Amino acid sequence: MSAELLFRLAQLNAAYADAIDCDRLEDWPGFFADPCRYVITTAENHRAGLPAGVIWADSRAMLADRVAALRRANIYERQAYRHILGMPLIRAVTADGIRAETPFLVARILRDGRTDLFATGSCLDLVRLDPAPCYAERIVVCASARFDPRLALPL
Amino acid sequence: MSAELLFRLAQLNAAYADAIDCDRLEDWPGFFADPCRYVITTAENHRAGLPAGVIWADSRAMLADRVAALRRANIYERQAYRHILGMPLIRAVTADGIRAETPFLVARILRDGRTDLFATGSCLDLVRLDPAPCYAERIVVCASARFDPRLALPL
Amino acid sequence: MSAELLFRLAQLNAAYADAIDCDRLEDWPGFFADPCRYVITTAENHRAGLPAGVIWADSRAMLADRVAALRRANIYERQAYRHILGMPLIRAVTADGIRAETPFLVARILRDGRTDLFATGSCLDLVRLDPAPCYAERIVVCASARFDPRLALPL
Repeated sequence: MSAELLFRLAQLNAAYADAIDCDRLEDWPGFFADPCRYVITTAENHRAGLPAGVIWADSRAMLADRVAALRRANIYERQAYRHILGMPLIRAVTADGIRAETPFLVARILRDGRTDLFATGSCLDLVRLDPAPCYAERIVVCASARFDPRLALPL
Repeated sequence: MSAELLFRLAQLNAAYADAIDCDRLEDWPGFFADPCRYVITTAENHRAGLPAGVIWADSRAMLADRVAALRRANIYERQAYRHILGMPLIRAVTADGIRAETPFLVARILRDGRTDLFATGSCLDLVRLDPAPCYAERIVVCASARFDPRLALPL
Repeated sequence: MSAELLFRLAQLNAAYADAIDCDRLEDWPGFFADPCRYVITTAENHRAGLPAGVIWADSRAMLADRVAALRRANIYERQAYRHILGMPLIRAVTADGIRAETPFLVARILRDGRTDLFATGSCLDLVRLDPAPCYAERIVVCASARFDPRLALPL
């Protein structure tokens, strides 16, 4: 564990959030290993050990499908996100990668300019650093179980 | 001052917030030196040089008493917090420890899933690094003086 | 790119935000090179390539004039800000300085204690490190175009 490791995790997290917030959704699957594990779940379900999430994918192709569906639905025209991320808390450095947790807050900006606090929670990540940093696993644990049904953009 | 120092402060801050946000309140006193100084106050009182805060403790035993009271009141059943922390601003490195300030925002998730912006402010810390990083002093300066009377969880 | 560089950017960003949030507005122009470029704009205008912003300055003197105007209007008496900053995403290290982007959220605390989510967005910076870190350019891109007309404090 060192500052250099934290630096690499923080840059990966920041680039990931920026791709979403700046509507470069097509870049999003490239932040993951292939195969991968991407889950959005709630703190309640996560505590109960329920592995299934609200949203789930295990390959870049599934993530790309999701982006294509969002584009068809024009979801992005109607809202934008802004991620504010905390510092990663490094849990373990293993042969499989770095286990780290990063708190997040997502503000949502609606078409009319109103901004609300859309979601908060913590990303539980397994990050591989070689050849380039990517997520082998990203479990997005949302603090609130009350999802807006229009939830659509990646977290 | 170096990146390695910032790394250690950021990890301490992140672990502290995670213990609270994930309902491991019993771990909370262990983040402090013993004796210590823990105060929650308002920006207005802090500017006026009033040392007393809304909440105050000077030992791990007092902090543990507070946790026990919270458990009896079942406060945690009714709400959860999510801390989003900024980067520590390192003010001074002295023989007593590191003086640093960390901005915070706390989102509160109520039992019905509603999320609000509960508190913002800055933690004024004196951190000791040896033998393990801990807070010799943590003064939580809340930007707003309008406290929700149900304020209960540690900040 | 290294952890040490990230450390210096993060300290500059944190000190800048702290000066504003703690009402040391007179220190604010000193965070910029002279001449400089300071712009507040919206994501929509920025995407459209419109260089003009809602607020604009190209020297420390212009920034100081703005502070003087704010003091005359007593804006600060009526509200305070609290910046929560993400980690800088380092885009490029050039002869002109470091190009970095930092997401921000600003909570606004009104005189009666109410706190709202005032603005979110990203600061697009050109930072010079020598002789001391400062902004040669800071373009504050607000995610929402719906500005509160009372917008006054620097972002």
